[in-house]
Order: sequence, then C-alpha cells, then structure tokens
Amino acid sequence: MTDLDGARLLRRLDELAAIGATPSGGVTRLAYSAQDVAGRELVAGWLREAGLSTGVDVAGNLLGRLPGTAGGGPALGTGSHLDSVVEAGPLDGAYGVVAAVEVAAALAASGGLTHDLLVVGFSNEEGARGTPGMVGSLAAAGALTADQLAAPDDEGVPLARRLRDVGGDPDAIGTAAWRPGDLAGWLELHIEQGPVLAAEGIRIGVVSAITGRVTLDVVIAGAANHAGTTPMALRRDAGVAAAHVVLAVRELALSGAVRVATTGVLRAEPGVRNVVAGRAVVGVDLRDEDDARIDAAVDTLRVWATDIAERTGTSVEVVFGSRIHAVPMDDRLVGCVADAADQLGLSRTGLPSGAGHDTQVIAPLMPVGMLFVPSIGGVSHAPDERSAPEDLVDGARTLLAALRLADNRLREGSR
Amino acid sequence: MTDLDGARLLRRLDELAAIGATPSGGVTRLAYSAQDVAGRELVAGWLREAGLSTGVDVAGNLLGRLPGTAGGGPALGTGSHLDSVVEAGPLDGAYGVVAAVEVAAALAASGGLTHDLLVVGFSNEEGARGTPGMVGSLAAAGALTADQLAAPDDEGVPLARRLRDVGGDPDAIGTAAWRPGDLAGWLELHIEQGPVLAAEGIRIGVVSAITGRVTLDVVIAGAANHAGTTPMALRRDAGVAAAHVVLAVRELALSGAVRVATTGVLRAEPGVRNVVAGRAVVGVDLRDEDDARIDAAVDTLRVWATDIAERTGTSVEVVFGSRIHAVPMDDRLVGCVADAADQLGLSRTGLPSGAGHDTQVIAPLMPVGMLFVPSIGGVSHAPDERSAPEDLVDGARTLLAALRLADNRLREGSR
Repeated sequence: MTDLDGARLLRRLDELAAIGATPSGGVTRLAYSAQDVAGRELVAGWLREAGLSTGVDVAGNLLGRLPGTAGGGPALGTGSHLDSVVEAGPLDGAYGVVAAVEVAAALAASGGLTHDLLVVGFSNEEGARGTPGMVGSLAAAGALTADQLAAPDDEGVPLARRLRDVGGDPDAIGTAAWRPGDLAGWLELHIEQGPVLAAEGIRIGVVSAITGRVTLDVVIAGAANHAGTTPMALRRDAGVAAAHVVLAVRELALSGAVRVATTGVLRAEPGVRNVVAGRAVVGVDLRDEDDARIDAAVDTLRVWATDIAERTGTSVEVVFGSRIHAVPMDDRLVGCVADAADQLGLSRTGLPSGAGHDTQVIAPLMPVGMLFVPSIGGVSHAPDERSAPEDLVDGARTLLAALRLADNRLREGSR
Repeated sequence: MTDLDGARLLRRLDELAAIGATPSGGVTRLAYSAQDVAGRELVAGWLREAGLSTGVDVAGNLLGRLPGTAGGGPALGTGSHLDSVVEAGPLDGAYGVVAAVEVAAALAASGGLTHDLLVVGFSNEEGARGTPGMVGSLAAAGALTADQLAAPDDEGVPLARRLRDVGGDPDAIGTAAWRPGDLAGWLELHIEQGPVLAAEGIRIGVVSAITGRVTLDVVIAGAANHAGTTPMALRRDAGVAAAHVVLAVRELALSGAVRVATTGVLRAEPGVRNVVAGRAVVGVDLRDEDDARIDAAVDTLRVWATDIAERTGTSVEVVFGSRIHAVPMDDRLVGCVADAADQLGLSRTGLPSGAGHDTQVIAPLMPVGMLFVPSIGGVSHAPDERSAPEDLVDGARTLLAALRLADNRLREGSR
C-alpha cells in the first residue's frame, strides 16, 4: 500500500504555521481573520492538488471529497480545525487537517477507499474573540442556535456578521448540517495537549472518550475582621475555608472519584494583609469519562463543603457553573486505531481526551474516534507547543492505516 | 474628688463626629483636610474653655497644657489622634482626645495635678491618602524623616506640602520633637477595635503591650498546565501549595507560636478555571507581644514551606515584608490603670493591643500605658463602629483616676 509523504507533511505544517506567525515564534490565526481565510485557501489548494473536490460551507468549514470505489453511500470523515488561539503553537488543529490532506493524497494515489473520504477543516473551534467556539462543528451537527449567531463577541460584532466576513451565510446555516447517514465514521488526529504519552514514551494515544466536564464556583462567606485585634477563636476566616476547599477538591481526584479535579481560581476578599478574609471564591473544574461519576463527586463535594463551613464558622455554597457531557469513542474505531498502531509497530495506550474537540460535537451523527501523538512537555496553547517530527509522521501514518481498516470494518451492513 | 462630665463627653463626641459626617452615617475626617482643621479648632476651643493654654506644633499636632501644682518639671501626657480613615466611625482616635479634654476639665476644676498635664490631639495617625501614618507622633518622637516629608502621597502631593496646607512647617519639623524628660508618663485611652472585651463582658482593657507585627509574602512557583489533560500525579499546583501555606500559617497561631496569624491575601495565577495554577501568593501577617516569638514563628514557617514545596512539587519562597517592633507598656502605668478600674468597681482584664497606636511611636521617650473600652461587635474602621455610652464615660473616668494615681507614683525621684 502507498505510504504517505512524511517530509511534505512536515513542510506543509511549517507553511501553514507561517500564516499568522508572530514575533515571539507563535501562531495567531484567529477564526474569521484574513489569516484564517488564507490558511483555508492554502489547504484547499493542497486538497485539489491531491485530486479532491473542495468547497466551503455556509459556516466557513473547508470540505474536500475523494470519491470511493463503491460509488456513493456514507463517507468516512477525518480532519480537525484550521483556526488557532492567540499566540498558539503550529499544531493544535492544523496537524489533524494537514495530516488528513496527506492521508487523502496517499489514498488518492492508491485508488481510494471503498467509502468516499471527506476531509474537513472546521472553522472556529477555539472561540476567537469571545465567540462560542466549535462553531463549524456545531453547524455541521445542526446545533448552532440563532441566539449564538446573534450574540456579539468581545468586539461587539455578532457571530452572524463574522460568518459573512469570510463568505459564510448565517441565514442558510441549516444547509451546513450533516444528515445522519452522510458519514459512516469519523476519525480526528490531534496532538495530546497533555504530558502522558511523552512521559511514558508511548507513540500513539488511542482515545477512549472525550471527558465530560462540570465547572463549579465554591463561594465562601465569612467575616472580614481586623487581623491584629481579632483572636483566632473568634474568626470566621473565608480564606481558611477556601484552603480546605482546595484540598477537598484535590482529594476528589486523588481518591479516584473523578479523573482530574482543579481549582484554578482562588481568591480572597478584600484581599489585604491586615484584614481577615470575609469572602473567598474557589473556581472548580471536574473532568471524567463518566458523567455519573462527576455528578457523584459534586454530591460528595457538597457534603464536604458543609463540613468545612461548620469547622470554620463560615457559609460555603457550591454553585453549579456549566456542563459538557462525556463522549465515549466508538469501539470499532478504537479497535481500528489500536490495530493500525500495532500494524506499524508503534507503541500505544488507551487514554481519555481531557481537552474538548470538534469530534465531541459531531459525535451524535456517526461513530467517532480520535488518536493522539505525544506533545513535548505536554505544552499546548503556547508558542512552544511542539511534537517530534517522527511522531507527527507516524501519527498520520496511523490515521491512514486506521481509515483503511475502518473502510472495511464500517462498510454498510456491518453496522 | 471632682468627677468628669459624662453627658458632655458624649455630646462632644457627637459634635466632633458631625465634622466630616457622611451620608452613610460614617465619618470621613482625613488628615490635612478642611474637616481635620475644623475638628482641631473645635477641640482647641474646648481645651481653652477648660482653662488650658493651647497651641498647634509644626507637625499639626494640637497641644493643650494645664499647669501643675509643682510648678514645672516633666508633664503627664494623654490624648490620641484627631483624624479618621474614609468612612470611619465616631470613636477611633476622637474618643481618646475628647475624653482627655473632659479629664483636663475635671482636673482643672479640682486644682490640677502636681505634674503639668499635656493633652495631645495627634495629627494624621491613619495615613490619609497613602501618607505614612503616625506623622504627628513621629514628629513628636523626632523620627519623621526628610524622605517621608518629600514623598508624594496617592494624589502626588508631598507630605511637606500637606503640612503647610494646615499651618505646619516641614522645614522646622525638628521643633515638634519632644525631649526625653519633657514627659514623666503617657496614657492613651482608645476603643479596643476588637471583640475581646465585649465578648467577655469586661469593662476596661488594661493594655499589656502593643503587638509587634511582621508581614511576609509567601510566593509559590508551580507549573501552569491544562486542567483537563494534566494527570494529578504530574501537576505542580501552586494553588494547592497555597492552601497548605494558609493552613500552616493558621497553625502558627493555633499552636501558640504567635498570638494571631493571618492570610488576608490569597491569589492564584493565571486565575482561570481550566488552567492549573502556575503561581500563587499568600500574604501573611504575624503579630505577638514578643518580637522573638514572631522571629521564631517565621523560622518555623520557612521549615514548613520547604516541606510544602517538596510535597507539592513547587518552589515556595518566604519573602520578608515589614516589621513593627512590639512595645511593652510600663509596669507602673499598667498598675495605675488596673488600680483605677478597681477603685471605680469596673471589671478589667489585661490584653495586648493588636492594632497600632501613636503610643508605640512615642514610647522611647517616656513610660507609656494604654487602656481600652469595649467595641460593640469588635467593629472598627467602619461607620457602625460604636461603644456603649456607659463604657465611654467609665473609660474616661478610669483615665482620670489612673492619671491621679500616676501623678503620685511617677513623681520625680520615684522613677
């Protein structure tokens, strides 16, 4: 079987990263910017060069199609997103798209799959300028709402006008929606954005699920008192209660109740040295592959919060923030990725995706899978986000092999 | 012996609080404001009405003198400060000055003490608009520096110009300095600004010492990582380390190493929910009546910080901030206050002052003592700062009785 052109993959990643390159060595290719459109055009040219027909839908998604030998029916899809955050690295999103281009080129050169192949460069996964994020995949899933289209971003511009700026058509947004049956399966290749594969020296991450996430605010009310004149026994110190909350949240993960538990927000008020904190806020992020485990952990945290309130003389309120449901990957596609890695002699491990991806948005429409390559130092959303060249090439080769396996295993009738 | 006029004391406190009264029911009589000067003039009039000679020194301090029967020699001094913070209550500082006025009036009516009596309304104890604070008492102690006079306040105005605005003379600031031997002793009456007396139902606080204070910043460096993709075991969470530091600082006081230990500043960075905190700061305030105990507690905290750093994979640095030395009260004056309370049948307890006072600044010049009356709810530096009228009157009566005892016990030759 034809292998893909690894050298060209690496060269094209550099070419794409040059669009929006910043003085600090990072990449800023915000959705709906001139750089975003230029990147989309560059990739579209590569797809046409490989023999695919290309188009841009009304949500700004780049679509390339390689006909299959079966002559129609559900396609196999692969891709990722083309936009970046401010001062990003060269790989988040871009890698999955450029790898898909090279996979398509290799498949085209070898006569294609039986299924059509759909290559997708999703628009605005990152949520530039305070837009919702995942806009392209939400449109593909038929889930982008009129409220989202009307809402102004950080610059006061409604999302609908942003779409028009890059040739989209918000009034016809429904035409961007994929129908169930359009695709037989979907695979997204991405950098891990975490340290696990690099730390363990494993080449391929076979994603088991995209994690669910619940955010909470733990709001503590104590009493702001003079730090010099208030005896310890008479204090109701919101900062001390917050410290107990931070350790309790961490214990949720250490005890195995959820996979990871984080308190990135930690703030005491009034926040001056000579006043006992009268109020404190702990912002909590809980993630797990099982929504029910997250819910149980929130219940546990509420019990612990009551105990902390009693011990510290404060009131502690656990305020629900937001929820993203967990999305399990399709068993057959998980098997295709694992077997592909084995075929290529690449070490692999199953792991969840702790970050969000377009794949979770389109998951209701078809079986989905994801695969990761190692991120050096686990760095992401920063200019020094990198992966080893051989990992990037072997990740794309694994995607190619997995699609070939899926082409067989997901044939109509085998579902 | 002549008693003082309690009704007039309460009325005059209301009169003084009317100068700078705010819509919220508070008092804003910032140092060097028109209200500050008006308050000083009002009190000066009361002093003259009582038969004292009055003057204002080059630092803006109001001074009133009642000659003693001994005809010269060291005076006994009493008073407090005339200025307030923004949205203060009616008592902090003002009570000690107005009580001194009534004490002077009662003494004048009964023929005076053997010592001269010096009544002082110190200027700018609170540090209005970012000025250093304790400016009047620093000048009296000969400790106000040229740097302090030249430094601009929050509005960019040098302290020297503020002094000129209220009739002071920064170029002659040395003439405001008291000489050792000018005073035989000093007593300051103040509201407790804490909850101890009110909580225990005790009428008079006999101050044992003004507490020493050390401030520290505990600065924690961890690693800012993705909250979804970074496994718990690979985290170096500065927020978790900060939580341990908060509890360790509290333990310093609970274990008795220092009287009170406070972490009013608690901040994690970058301070967003989906990023593990990479940096955190805990602002620490340690107070005790014994400087050596504070130093030992700082040493203990450094040891604990090293342990926390090891357990959390962070680096934890304890950065020294500032120090105010503890000032013990003079045993004879402590005895005068205690005996005065006993004479009047008022319950009393020894306690430290957790807040700072002018008395600690002038303490190097003479024996000093302080007495407190209960603060309702321990409130201070807020519009609802109050004390019971009978406590205010009995506090002034105790000051009067204590000065009469001191007049005997601190006579020249008995030192």
